[in-house]
Amino acid sequence: MTYTSLVTGGAGFIGSHVAADLLRAGHRVVVLDDLSGGTAANVPSGAHFHQGDICDPGVVDALFAEWRFDHVFHLAAYAAEGLSHFIKRYNYTNNVVGSVNLINAAVNAGTVRCFVFTSSIAVYGHAEPPMTEDLIPSPVDPYGIAKYAVEQELKVSHEMFGLPYIIFRPHNVYGERQNIGDRYRNVIGIFMNQILRGEECVIFGDGEQTRAFSHIDDVAPPIARSIENPRAYGQTFNIGGDTPYTVNELAEAVATAMGVEPRVRHVEARHEVVHAFSSHDRAREILGVGTTSVPLTDGLTQMATWAKKHGPQEPSIFSGIEISKNMPPSWQSVVASD
Amino acid sequence: MTYTSLVTGGAGFIGSHVAADLLRAGHRVVVLDDLSGGTAANVPSGAHFHQGDICDPGVVDALFAEWRFDHVFHLAAYAAEGLSHFIKRYNYTNNVVGSVNLINAAVNAGTVRCFVFTSSIAVYGHAEPPMTEDLIPSPVDPYGIAKYAVEQELKVSHEMFGLPYIIFRPHNVYGERQNIGDRYRNVIGIFMNQILRGEECVIFGDGEQTRAFSHIDDVAPPIARSIENPRAYGQTFNIGGDTPYTVNELAEAVATAMGVEPRVRHVEARHEVVHAFSSHDRAREILGVGTTSVPLTDGLTQMATWAKKHGPQEPSIFSGIEISKNMPPSWQSVVASD
Ligand SMILES: NC(=O)c1ccc[n+]([C@@H]2O[C@H](COP(=O)([O-])OP(=O)(O)OC[C@H]3O[C@@H](n4cnc5c(N)ncnc54)[C@H](O)[C@@H]3O)[C@@H](O)[C@H]2O)c1
Ligand SMILES: NC(=O)c1ccc[n+]([C@@H]2O[C@H](COP(=O)([O-])OP(=O)(O)OC[C@H]3O[C@@H](n4cnc5c(N)ncnc54)[C@H](O)[C@@H]3O)[C@@H](O)[C@H]2O)c1
Repeated sequence: MTYTSLVTGGAGFIGSHVAADLLRAGHRVVVLDDLSGGTAANVPSGAHFHQGDICDPGVVDALFAEWRFDHVFHLAAYAAEGLSHFIKRYNYTNNVVGSVNLINAAVNAGTVRCFVFTSSIAVYGHAEPPMTEDLIPSPVDPYGIAKYAVEQELKVSHEMFGLPYIIFRPHNVYGERQNIGDRYRNVIGIFMNQILRGEECVIFGDGEQTRAFSHIDDVAPPIARSIENPRAYGQTFNIGGDTPYTVNELAEAVATAMGVEPRVRHVEARHEVVHAFSSHDRAREILGVGTTSVPLTDGLTQMATWAKKHGPQEPSIFSGIEISKNMPPSWQSVVASD
Repeated sequence: MTYTSLVTGGAGFIGSHVAADLLRAGHRVVVLDDLSGGTAANVPSGAHFHQGDICDPGVVDALFAEWRFDHVFHLAAYAAEGLSHFIKRYNYTNNVVGSVNLINAAVNAGTVRCFVFTSSIAVYGHAEPPMTEDLIPSPVDPYGIAKYAVEQELKVSHEMFGLPYIIFRPHNVYGERQNIGDRYRNVIGIFMNQILRGEECVIFGDGEQTRAFSHIDDVAPPIARSIENPRAYGQTFNIGGDTPYTVNELAEAVATAMGVEPRVRHVEARHEVVHAFSSHDRAREILGVGTTSVPLTDGLTQMATWAKKHGPQEPSIFSGIEISKNMPPSWQSVVASD
């Protein structure tokens, strides 16, 4: 049979790759995206694109009335973790209420075999790495709190209404089609854009914070394939790269991939988790991922080729700041001056 | 000095008592309430009443611009725990986004000495009673998930912006000014209204589920006083009655207080926690509460006198049901037929 799958956020980075993987697997794919972060050009050809906001229940319900969705891959979100302190309302509206509109619609439709949700490593907060899925989440920013609330909501909706779900907690994903013009998130994209614009790479604090960067090819395919695996249902999976790098190391590696001399500028540290990387044992065991992991230098070289072709982007400014107190000065000047 | 305190939900049950206690303690009191659950008649005289919705940031910001609030007592919420499965969007909008509007405004005002929030025992979910505040919350319904998200948000806002807070987790509060016309919550009010209307008391399941009912005089005064106690800041407190009763026992006690023969009807069990009561050691130790606890029979007699004077209420119907699947049949028929 031909599955009909909804991909929210399918005009964005990870969502567009998931949509492409689903098309390759033979699904009929509908993309719902409001283009707040993505672009229509990212939507893979063959997918039905519907521009609309998940926060509007009318939009969501109409789409579910039009199509009989077998699967929902819910990736739409504004994922600026660091910025989420300053845009709390936007964060909870987009990430919690928007998600709940989709959960409501999926329960009411009665046709959905699986609701796949991209949560985030942000739910772990200050936990000692490597984080395993059994740790009880303890997020330390509004973005992580919102993701965790949706995880809990999915469990409750499963208990109460039998809605099947799979939760992924990706981290620091990079690759082609990433929005390198977002100045508040995705350090690799930010560095590449700074290099393309002839600027220094800006590092918050001493740069010794570590992250395990994940190439999109290690993230999107397991998400798309997960629904075929009965053992994945009801589970939560960390997904992504295994090797932590410091942000200083990263800046060098990005410069090398872009074929330039590294030039960095350190600015005041911001409120963030110092070391974050997670265990992928469960994903390896149940989803069989991990063996084909893309090494950082290869992934960066691939992305650099794309980024150069794509060209430098005018960094976008988030215009709806709700709190400006204690904002990193480098963001504050942007918000104030532009 | 005279404190200026905002009480959201001050036209409701607990909020109106907290507002009255604050007035007695010499505060200037502003009540913000949209009257979705409360009535203007509940607002104690002497308080400045502003009718408005906490979900509207314009309303909230304008109020903070008009007054320099020293304290925020945030009690506005729709607290129908059992119904929250079926009104998820309304629940998260009202209880999370509404709360976040107030947190944003409190951070931006820079005058707020304490943000007092009424969470709920619902955050504990299926935990083994008696629940202590050190347990890591694990809510099992949207209402509890929303309350827990706001608790986490307050911790993060304290870390990030220095906003002081105190969290209360009350449970099963009853007494004068409770909305006995709400058919979805407050079993004592529902029983009293059923008796006043000559109906049987409707019990979900076998009635052997237990709750420790809390008289308002054991709940509102410690909430109002908490801001004077430096040791209370940054803390979370269970608050309320100590003695668990079964719902069957309760039905008898309510009938006695109302001066009628008990008449009950059991209907299909709904999805709810079976035993829920909490430890109040921390409130006793830090807040000094507990020694004047109102016994159930006294509290019920007092409330029954008020309820009879107040008269039977036409049970209100929640008109914005989002999911009707798996709704308790007794609610479903109400929703469908009225
Ligand atoms: N990139 C990462 O490192 C990472 C890490 C952990 C989790 N995630 C999660 O993965 C998902 C995808 O992230 P991404 O990196 O591809 O981000 P992205 O910004 O490239 O994609 C998100 C897409 O969602 C859309 N969107 C946002 N709000 C919307 C709304 N209200 N209605 C409709 N569409 C809306 C945007 O336009 C965008 O196209 C997100 O849920 C994110 O939280 C990403
Ligand atoms: N009653 C209990 O047993 C109990 C137990 C645990 C927690 N709580 C919490 O205590 C608080 C007060 O509960 P209560 O029993 O007094 O309920 P209530 O319904 O009597 O009072 C809540 C008040 O908030 C108002 N309100 C609701 N949504 C609003 C909005 N969007 N904008 C402005 N006002 C709004 C309602 O009109 C109502 O007057 C709530 O936060 C509730 O979750 C109550």
